[in-house]
Amino acid sequence: MHTQVGIIGAGPSGLCLALLLSREGIKSVILERQNREHVESRIRAGILEQGMADLMRKAGVGARMDREGLLHDGIVLAFNGRMERIDMASLTGGKQVMVYGQTELTKDLYDAVLQDPNITVIFEARGVHPVSFLEGKPAIEYVQDEKHVRIECDYIAGCDGYHGASRASVPRDMITEYERIYPFGWLGLLSDTPPVHEELIYANHKRGFALCSMRSHTRSRYYIQVGLDEKVEDWSDDRFWDELRRRLPPEVAEKMVTGPSIEKSIAPLRSFVAEPLRFGNMFLVGDAGHIVPPTGAKGLNLAASDMYYLSTALIAWYKDGRSDLLDRYSEVALRRVWAAVRFSWWFTSISHKFNDDPIEHKIQLAELDYLMSSKAGQTTIAENYVGLPFDPDFV
Amino acid sequence: MHTQVGIIGAGPSGLCLALLLSREGIKSVILERQNREHVESRIRAGILEQGMADLMRKAGVGARMDREGLLHDGIVLAFNGRMERIDMASLTGGKQVMVYGQTELTKDLYDAVLQDPNITVIFEARGVHPVSFLEGKPAIEYVQDEKHVRIECDYIAGCDGYHGASRASVPRDMITEYERIYPFGWLGLLSDTPPVHEELIYANHKRGFALCSMRSHTRSRYYIQVGLDEKVEDWSDDRFWDELRRRLPPEVAEKMVTGPSIEKSIAPLRSFVAEPLRFGNMFLVGDAGHIVPPTGAKGLNLAASDMYYLSTALIAWYKDGRSDLLDRYSEVALRRVWAAVRFSWWFTSISHKFNDDPIEHKIQLAELDYLMSSKAGQTTIAENYVGLPFDPDFV
Repeated sequence: MHTQVGIIGAGPSGLCLALLLSREGIKSVILERQNREHVESRIRAGILEQGMADLMRKAGVGARMDREGLLHDGIVLAFNGRMERIDMASLTGGKQVMVYGQTELTKDLYDAVLQDPNITVIFEARGVHPVSFLEGKPAIEYVQDEKHVRIECDYIAGCDGYHGASRASVPRDMITEYERIYPFGWLGLLSDTPPVHEELIYANHKRGFALCSMRSHTRSRYYIQVGLDEKVEDWSDDRFWDELRRRLPPEVAEKMVTGPSIEKSIAPLRSFVAEPLRFGNMFLVGDAGHIVPPTGAKGLNLAASDMYYLSTALIAWYKDGRSDLLDRYSEVALRRVWAAVRFSWWFTSISHKFNDDPIEHKIQLAELDYLMSSKAGQTTIAENYVGLPFDPDFV
Repeated sequence: MHTQVGIIGAGPSGLCLALLLSREGIKSVILERQNREHVESRIRAGILEQGMADLMRKAGVGARMDREGLLHDGIVLAFNGRMERIDMASLTGGKQVMVYGQTELTKDLYDAVLQDPNITVIFEARGVHPVSFLEGKPAIEYVQDEKHVRIECDYIAGCDGYHGASRASVPRDMITEYERIYPFGWLGLLSDTPPVHEELIYANHKRGFALCSMRSHTRSRYYIQVGLDEKVEDWSDDRFWDELRRRLPPEVAEKMVTGPSIEKSIAPLRSFVAEPLRFGNMFLVGDAGHIVPPTGAKGLNLAASDMYYLSTALIAWYKDGRSDLLDRYSEVALRRVWAAVRFSWWFTSISHKFNDDPIEHKIQLAELDYLMSSKAGQTTIAENYVGLPFDPDFV
């Protein structure tokens, strides 16, 4: 079998990239080791920057998102008993973010991809791995129904996440990996209850961080910081709600509507960047190349700029025979990656409890106090939260 | 002996406070365990915020400062081979800082204080300590020429620094102390050579932080970050200059004029805050209540707001019988203290090498890259560097 672009991983990055390429007639095959239901049920991000929302529209899958997504103009920071709103829209010349769950977005992408004649999706492909990408004649090999299969392609896009085979296939001496593990995790709870507030609340509290988020007007997503040694089975719904309320200002806690959890899980927090993002004719996209802690909701939105840059570069190659954008992909993508890694690290640092030294919390409160007292300070949060622009010179 | 305000410590804070009080006819006695020459020869800060410069003028000792001090509109951040200027004046509506060494400023203060009829300075007072300040009838006791002396006063201002007797005399259960020790120090060198650049250069480098500062057009002050185990006798002048040049962009390093050191010393870095700053009728001022790392030059400038608030409060008491400002001193002073503790910590964090994990340096570079790309980001540095305003409601 042969295709133009072989894509490893049928998560949002791989699916959206395939659609962006298809619009210009570029053919791709997507290899996924799970089935569709498994991918769709992964509960991940819920906040789309305008850049990601625009990519969905460009890929022709923005209709339901625009109908059902919730546009947000601001976020709330809760600290030291205060509730302070950051009016992102007014601080950034009108930029907003959209609340639209990754599960919904993934459904929309599958609906489009599976009827696109330029795209083939192969589910339940075992042992998927890229080969020969350094020599310029890449292929993807996998096993299906106990048969070894090989797909020749021009380029490979590694969209298979942090644990995927793409990055793992790169010789160790060609890649530099930067990593920071945080000394805590997030315990998340999803419930069909109305959100406690119309905007997200990020709470700094002596007991640890808390986040009030949502997926819709009737579905809430809450998180609390927990130790790495915590087990989800030790957290009954009641215990979760109690702890969440203790970390929120009283006026928020008292109007919280609680209900049974639909899902509850603990996720570790990690900052990770691989450099470079190109290895011969293989390109890493999204989580395969970088991970950020979820504070600030940058994960999927950072995959967005990778998809944008890589699709732009591949289209320039197939349409105009230009390889200059492919050559610049890694450098340009990484600059925005590092900016988001920095912001996600900073937002985590300012809002979480790292240790028991009381000066830590006092400095956090002093920083939040300063930021809220300064228009420039608020703007630095707002312009990062809505998303730094894609590089306009990458054309 | 009796006075109105007993001041412990004849450094810049105690001297300037006494002058501000004297202008309203308030009498004070200043106790100093050293002699004048010793205090004057301490090499400390060199950058005055406008608030501190205005206090010097208000105290009647601004003439030489205004004649000889150098006004600066900006600073330079050097990182990743780049030299980026922050135009503080244009970002803050015209605010500047003044380069004027603490040694010069202290001379000016002594010249005024020693001929002021409202102020008595007692040098070489041994075993100075405040007593009875919690009961409302405070006194300062000390030993001079082997005689025990007691000075009764209405109020005590503890201006005797981090290691002084004022804070140490407070019962442990009445005070909360917040402290962070940094895992490195600053090796400083003073030389009669022209400064390498007309503005200060703060350099982030893989090998560690460096700072190019000055006291005048002919006297330079340079610093490099060193390990806490380093000894000043292991650093010849040549070794210092070599290491400094390695941490600067080539275009700076190559025009560096070197020369013999006048002074060379290693100082540890510390963040420290005591809460509250009032204990009965004793008030802590400046380093006695808080310490910041020197990055950002906030030490003396933070003492300035304490002096301003305390002199304002004491004048309101003596002139109008109002005690409300004395009651608010601690809270209002601490708010600005924490803001500067936060900024000094942040500026230290972004510019120093804390460990060998390479992601630390990458995140620092990403933050500097973001800040220089954003007007809001530059403004957050500028408005903190020139100094946050004194609270206008403290009247």
